[in-house]
Amino acid sequence: MIHPLIQNLTATFTRLYRYSHLAAIAGWDQSAMMPPKGNEARAAALAELQVLMHQTLTSEALAGLFQAASGEALDDAEQASVREMRRQWQQAKLLPERWVEAQSLAASRCEHAWRTQRQQNDWTGFLGNFRAVVALAREEAKRLVDAKGGSCYDALMDKYEPGMRSNDMDRIFGDVKSWLPELIGKTLDKQSLETVIKPQGLFPVDQQRSLGIEIMSLLGFDFEAGRLDVSTHPFCGGVAEDVRITTRYSEDDFMRSLMGTVHETGHARYEQNLPRERVHLPVGQARSMGIHESQSLSFEMQLGRSPQFLALIAPLLQKHLGRQAAFEAGNLAALFTRVQPGLIRVDADELTYPAHVILRYEIERALIECEIEAEDIPALWDEKMMSYLGVDTRGNFQDGCMQDIHWPGGSFGYFPSYALGSMYAAQFFATIRSGQPDLDAQVLAGNLSPVFNWLEKHIWREASRWPTDELVKRATGETLNPAHFRRYLEQRYLAA
Amino acid sequence: MIHPLIQNLTATFTRLYRYSHLAAIAGWDQSAMMPPKGNEARAAALAELQVLMHQTLTSEALAGLFQAASGEALDDAEQASVREMRRQWQQAKLLPERWVEAQSLAASRCEHAWRTQRQQNDWTGFLGNFRAVVALAREEAKRLVDAKGGSCYDALMDKYEPGMRSNDMDRIFGDVKSWLPELIGKTLDKQSLETVIKPQGLFPVDQQRSLGIEIMSLLGFDFEAGRLDVSTHPFCGGVAEDVRITTRYSEDDFMRSLMGTVHETGHARYEQNLPRERVHLPVGQARSMGIHESQSLSFEMQLGRSPQFLALIAPLLQKHLGRQAAFEAGNLAALFTRVQPGLIRVDADELTYPAHVILRYEIERALIECEIEAEDIPALWDEKMMSYLGVDTRGNFQDGCMQDIHWPGGSFGYFPSYALGSMYAAQFFATIRSGQPDLDAQVLAGNLSPVFNWLEKHIWREASRWPTDELVKRATGETLNPAHFRRYLEQRYLAA
Repeated sequence: MIHPLIQNLTATFTRLYRYSHLAAIAGWDQSAMMPPKGNEARAAALAELQVLMHQTLTSEALAGLFQAASGEALDDAEQASVREMRRQWQQAKLLPERWVEAQSLAASRCEHAWRTQRQQNDWTGFLGNFRAVVALAREEAKRLVDAKGGSCYDALMDKYEPGMRSNDMDRIFGDVKSWLPELIGKTLDKQSLETVIKPQGLFPVDQQRSLGIEIMSLLGFDFEAGRLDVSTHPFCGGVAEDVRITTRYSEDDFMRSLMGTVHETGHARYEQNLPRERVHLPVGQARSMGIHESQSLSFEMQLGRSPQFLALIAPLLQKHLGRQAAFEAGNLAALFTRVQPGLIRVDADELTYPAHVILRYEIERALIECEIEAEDIPALWDEKMMSYLGVDTRGNFQDGCMQDIHWPGGSFGYFPSYALGSMYAAQFFATIRSGQPDLDAQVLAGNLSPVFNWLEKHIWREASRWPTDELVKRATGETLNPAHFRRYLEQRYLAA
Repeated sequence: MIHPLIQNLTATFTRLYRYSHLAAIAGWDQSAMMPPKGNEARAAALAELQVLMHQTLTSEALAGLFQAASGEALDDAEQASVREMRRQWQQAKLLPERWVEAQSLAASRCEHAWRTQRQQNDWTGFLGNFRAVVALAREEAKRLVDAKGGSCYDALMDKYEPGMRSNDMDRIFGDVKSWLPELIGKTLDKQSLETVIKPQGLFPVDQQRSLGIEIMSLLGFDFEAGRLDVSTHPFCGGVAEDVRITTRYSEDDFMRSLMGTVHETGHARYEQNLPRERVHLPVGQARSMGIHESQSLSFEMQLGRSPQFLALIAPLLQKHLGRQAAFEAGNLAALFTRVQPGLIRVDADELTYPAHVILRYEIERALIECEIEAEDIPALWDEKMMSYLGVDTRGNFQDGCMQDIHWPGGSFGYFPSYALGSMYAAQFFATIRSGQPDLDAQVLAGNLSPVFNWLEKHIWREASRWPTDELVKRATGETLNPAHFRRYLEQRYLAA
């Protein structure tokens, strides 16, 4: 029998799930479908919905239920469910309704204007809206810190990565910074001796789209429960029952859209395979953004850029884009692991990618801790891009500090999740390989089920049943161990 | 200064408008974008939103405001605004929350299953869900009648056509039935002597779509504030700030999609030109569904099928679909006024269309008044289709009583609005012509602004400022006068 307290809590969180369904679909539409003049009304509607969800989550009735729940004997599964519900509630009750509405509107306004301002390299115009977004994020952090202690940045990061602290990130990133530059240098030396045939375009959008759809099917995406569309900034949105991923096409470069689609398909399969019977409750939803990114990066990096997977899809490239020398399997493996320091995070290769994340982490942490102001960002950006990647970004805001949607949208504290995702993915694949020593041969033969079955059993179906550390330990025998990531990169980039 | 009571009422109705924005976008998505497995979660989310809107509209605070408003001295505009808000409130407060949720879920379930059942001609399967929809509609009608008197069908029709009664419809339809059969007969005789060149297909979807978009632009659709997409059952949805129209393409018949697009563009321009400063309040929203249909039919019938408009777009047909003899202007005029009794309402020509509406009106009224049951519909349908149009529908449910979305979606009492729309449109154009005697020459020359300007001034900008009769009288000098419709049909179909 279900405990009556659990029933009452479940009813409220089911209602919240339905509201969040509407927010997710209207949010997807805003990015993928909405014409420009629709934005003001949409922003108002979404802010109203945020306020409603906040009211629901901070109602006195709910507070009473949580209080009652602490004195009750609940079984393990019920305790886990209450733990995750309580986490959302505790976060929400520290923020006033006025803040929720103001944040939603400020982020909508800033993000909407950013879409144009970025194209126009208009940093000054952007700053006008962005300052309000920063001020609201700092207010949020301060309120959380006042109640729970810790640092401001940690308070925000905790929303995406429960339990993770900047001390942990400093240690992890400090380690990466100690070996990554040398690895990049050696790889560039090694690759300078290799010959790679570049694909000859153009590649019409229709052909790229049909290729993407066939590869999504190969990767197990359920098109009866999701869609592929186009947006400026690719993302995985929608709801678990109806997952909406997006990509963007450039006719002179099919590789970007292809790997973007593989990446988002990883996110999508996580969502599509969350435990359907609990997906309306926090305990049945994605564990953290780091774990979410570990799924997209498992698909894109571990699997998608492996020589075996690329050999498997080489015939599909030829089928949809036409035959050419560049599509030979060995050449594809070289192409998709080519290292080249560049401006854009989402286009970065696997080796230089962590530098993009570390740079953002360092800047946004200083911003939230009030050590710098928004107007200090470009100079810091220029300095760090030169220092970490030897890339000159001066005056180029659109491909510099204005390139990502996270800051205009008010998501501070998210970037570390990308780096954590890379590391979790490497750790998961080390475990999969140890249980399936012929994994490469299986992939080459088109049998991807060892990967999918392992992820489904250890990650997707577990959802938020366990805290992150325990989830990872149950899956791999140890908590996060970045050594797997280093070993994997050295193996892929230096061994062959 | 705005009256404080008005301010308070406005705040609540603004919130309702924002909720309805989310319902409209999620509803559009459900029909135009959503993959099949998303339906259950979507239906639950939309039902939750319906319940929320109902709670908001029936709150004690709002009841108090309306009570206070009746004793206040308000100016004319404020009175009109309160009148329209009160109308929604009075409707809502007679229905219990339990009914609202059950109705939303039953209609979602029935409509979703209908999409497949219709294709499979599965009347028995349909009936399983449909009975619940009928029962809930009858319950609604009974509750409204218990409180307000009148007949059950009138209570439902009043939601779409405020102030209209079935006595009025009986009189209007009785008149139409007295002269329409003879007019159809004469027209068929006349047209049997004419030679019409049929278009030679196929017409690829891409070409039809680009033609549709160019014609929407010609008709003033604002693509910065709306979209054109595809759905099985074409409709105009979304919100006034972001209007979503849909069409469906058949590669062997471009005419259906073309005129469907012109029709929905009429709805869209009404929405896009409602008074933006009041569109969040009932007084700033569309007057009635009859007036809404009068806009789509003004575009499709009065304007769209006129020889002058067809001559104007003949070069566009040739541009997008290629040159062929059928696209000569005179031939197009004959093609688009060709009369042919058929099975499908939305594909019906202008002359046989009213028969489709009258048949549905008679059946749904009997159904709501409990004179027949759902299982009696097919036999009645067969009998009336044979009697009114000489068409045999026996055993053909999919192109018979299962063809429209209205009944599975629970919209009983809507069909009369189509016929009223035809009549209003004829009356509006009679007025436009009397002020602009060279209208045909203007249209032929590509100047559509006399039509748009008149509609904008007399219909679009007025929104719900006046009750329907007064709106029509202010615009045309008289209330609804079906004689204009008859005169117009005789002129178009028999005169030349």
